[in-house]
Amino acid sequence: MWRRCFFAWLTGFGQHERNQRETVTRHLLLGAFEVNALNISSQGLWARPDHDSTEYKHLSRWTRLAQMLDRGGFDFLFLADTYGYPLLSGEVPAVAIEQAVDLPKNDPLLLIPALAAVTERLSFAVTSSTTYEEPFANARRFATLDHLTGGRVAWNVVTSSSVAATQLFGRDGLIAHDQRYEIASEYMDLSYKLLEGSWEDDAVKADKVGRVYADPDKVHVVEHEGKYFKCKGVFCCEPSPQRTPVIFQAGASKAGRGFAARHAEVVFLQGSDTESLRNQVTSIRQAAEEHGRDPRDIKTVVGLSAIAADSRAEAEAQLEDYLSYAHQQAARVYYAMMTGVDLAKLEADGAMSELRTELGQTQLERYAKKSAADAYADFSKRGLREFIMLGTGGEIAEQLAELVEETDVDGINFAPFANPGSYENFIDRVVPELRDLELLPTEPSGPKTFREGLFGQAHAKKTHPAAQYRVGK
Amino acid sequence: MWRRCFFAWLTGFGQHERNQRETVTRHLLLGAFEVNALNISSQGLWARPDHDSTEYKHLSRWTRLAQMLDRGGFDFLFLADTYGYPLLSGEVPAVAIEQAVDLPKNDPLLLIPALAAVTERLSFAVTSSTTYEEPFANARRFATLDHLTGGRVAWNVVTSSSVAATQLFGRDGLIAHDQRYEIASEYMDLSYKLLEGSWEDDAVKADKVGRVYADPDKVHVVEHEGKYFKCKGVFCCEPSPQRTPVIFQAGASKAGRGFAARHAEVVFLQGSDTESLRNQVTSIRQAAEEHGRDPRDIKTVVGLSAIAADSRAEAEAQLEDYLSYAHQQAARVYYAMMTGVDLAKLEADGAMSELRTELGQTQLERYAKKSAADAYADFSKRGLREFIMLGTGGEIAEQLAELVEETDVDGINFAPFANPGSYENFIDRVVPELRDLELLPTEPSGPKTFREGLFGQAHAKKTHPAAQYRVGK
Repeated sequence: MWRRCFFAWLTGFGQHERNQRETVTRHLLLGAFEVNALNISSQGLWARPDHDSTEYKHLSRWTRLAQMLDRGGFDFLFLADTYGYPLLSGEVPAVAIEQAVDLPKNDPLLLIPALAAVTERLSFAVTSSTTYEEPFANARRFATLDHLTGGRVAWNVVTSSSVAATQLFGRDGLIAHDQRYEIASEYMDLSYKLLEGSWEDDAVKADKVGRVYADPDKVHVVEHEGKYFKCKGVFCCEPSPQRTPVIFQAGASKAGRGFAARHAEVVFLQGSDTESLRNQVTSIRQAAEEHGRDPRDIKTVVGLSAIAADSRAEAEAQLEDYLSYAHQQAARVYYAMMTGVDLAKLEADGAMSELRTELGQTQLERYAKKSAADAYADFSKRGLREFIMLGTGGEIAEQLAELVEETDVDGINFAPFANPGSYENFIDRVVPELRDLELLPTEPSGPKTFREGLFGQAHAKKTHPAAQYRVGK
Repeated sequence: MWRRCFFAWLTGFGQHERNQRETVTRHLLLGAFEVNALNISSQGLWARPDHDSTEYKHLSRWTRLAQMLDRGGFDFLFLADTYGYPLLSGEVPAVAIEQAVDLPKNDPLLLIPALAAVTERLSFAVTSSTTYEEPFANARRFATLDHLTGGRVAWNVVTSSSVAATQLFGRDGLIAHDQRYEIASEYMDLSYKLLEGSWEDDAVKADKVGRVYADPDKVHVVEHEGKYFKCKGVFCCEPSPQRTPVIFQAGASKAGRGFAARHAEVVFLQGSDTESLRNQVTSIRQAAEEHGRDPRDIKTVVGLSAIAADSRAEAEAQLEDYLSYAHQQAARVYYAMMTGVDLAKLEADGAMSELRTELGQTQLERYAKKSAADAYADFSKRGLREFIMLGTGGEIAEQLAELVEETDVDGINFAPFANPGSYENFIDRVVPELRDLELLPTEPSGPKTFREGLFGQAHAKKTHPAAQYRVGK
């Protein structure tokens, strides 16, 4: 019943006739939110006996996880990343090391080839920074990954707001927020030129009998001379299945949203209440439309944790148990890393709404109606988690269905409490219920590129900025 | 018989008593020379019906190869790389695209995680450039690879001499050769600081009961402020099995050799005659000694191709057949890419010995006694190949034994003509004969780090520059 309303409402959205032609069956996008490190979202949970994140250094831990997600109906594994770590008054706080707050952390991109080799459908979204990676090297990495995964790769574009990272890379300091996005915008244009504008689709002949590997007339020199980057030459990689990887974006600032409206194909939203999420979804779709894109060409996902049990009371008890491992001082330095605000130094009854910083505005707004003491208490427990859903598998599936109906969000980025238990719990108890509600397909589709799964085509759509740099017919 | 002399001579080398204490059984190092591209050493062979390099884009091609090498007794897979490609008069020659001369080419580093997952002993050496990769990001990549491979990784350090690469990265032009090595030297120091000088060996406790992941007193801030690089902060990766990856080097210039004498643990030598190879081996060992290192702490490997058949005549016929696919114009642009010399523009009877360039001096010296026309004819066929050995499996094993005896070289980097045929041929026919000669162990040893296999210990030796940056006991 709710589904009929839901789709009726969807197809009416923005009065876009284009939506009527939508051929891809819409289903809930399922992502798994991971870092190549010890703690996810709530600091301190690494120490749980039922959590395997101390095995993060070993490939076998990751291949097991990827296979479970692949078989369990997940669409993608999202690998968050930053070169940074917490600083308080310019120093690494001891608790950050003791509780492994974003330190240590390995390169997540290097997991993907091994995980692609043991999975069939699962796609991989990985963070790469327009501030720290060379555009040409970055494009080569993503093109190579796209080849090796058969087109199952996405690039989560970040501009990096970490002060620690500026010092590690010997930079003079943090580039101003809006300028970082200006740089990112030029970075994307250059990336598209390389990925789309050098080799024509049919440049590669691989004709052994005729002794022609590629047709020189169909391979073009890219020239770019911008404000921030310069590049001239032929791109080193032949066309990969998707060409441009699926573009993810997660920044919540005004500049970030403007960037997303133009470039993103999937936006990772924050916000732990329905109203805020609905506003974000509506606003990003409108912004996409203003850039000449179909509002449906941006998929939105939101962070979600869930615990399914035989009863809601049991699930609540399990949540209590999980969060009993949350570490307050670790949460404090983690919050400071993301927002520039030290919760421990605020007046306990001060209003969070008055704070403004360059970083993490969303994490501040979330507590706009709370006192600093309440915000500190809440963040110490929940950490970065957005929605937390508790109940039986059926109840959680219904909650999810309602969230989708009320906010128009396309999917979730599932943040586990413990690995692999949280995923097993979701796959065993919630996924079958989501299938019953037709929010997930009964049978996972065969192997295809990530973008085909999202939008029914392997290459970026014509209204996406990547398309303008295409060469050939 | 020859073996006894060989070892007697070895242990007497340089009158080093240290050598007497050598506990690692010395055997011929077997490397496989590959690129993540179409042609290896001889241009044009991609078109052979029995060569699978057109599958280079697919993981399955590489996992099959790695498993064959792993089971066949190879020690390492060497993945050569450059961001560059051929230019003639500043343009990409059409033949470079048509015959796939270093173009297209994918990122080789991204193969390693997937190959490590399906192999047990095989190590992986991969090229990374001190001119184009950020030191911090590069160190993170190698530390992550070292974790994921269980310590089976080596870094082939290059400074990059490609003009095409300078344009792709928007640089002002090629940095002068010796300055590139000055930069590389500082780059290595910073890399060692990060890899060895931030986390003490026992910093990680992973104590779930005591709720301590790492001991903050054993994790240190690295500070570097040099002529070319600046870095301040904690390294993001906890200690990996080898810490510093095994360091490879292949440059043959004076500055390159000075660099190798200080930093390299394996040197990839060029030169296709015994005398030149012996001189290089002797000279690099002496240079190591001048830097306070044991001359045996640098292993030397040389490029080698081999064809084993029932008779030498048959092997010669097979070589003819292989090289019938060599493409002269492709070889010409490949030679120009590496040396800066266009063979087609030289006076046919001009002496090669008079040429001097910034690039590829070894490739010029190789033809010092030849006319330009002869050099052109030779390079068109053989390409970059060094030694080519032909005969029965037993004959080739004997030739190899003699080469080792006469030059003191430690091993080979095997360049195939066709994949997987050339490796199968070597593994089936030559490897058993090398075992009979005790040049290879009868049973491959169990999984261990690359450096343990080479030198009996996982971490860099005390006389290696990496060691000076170690912290803690």
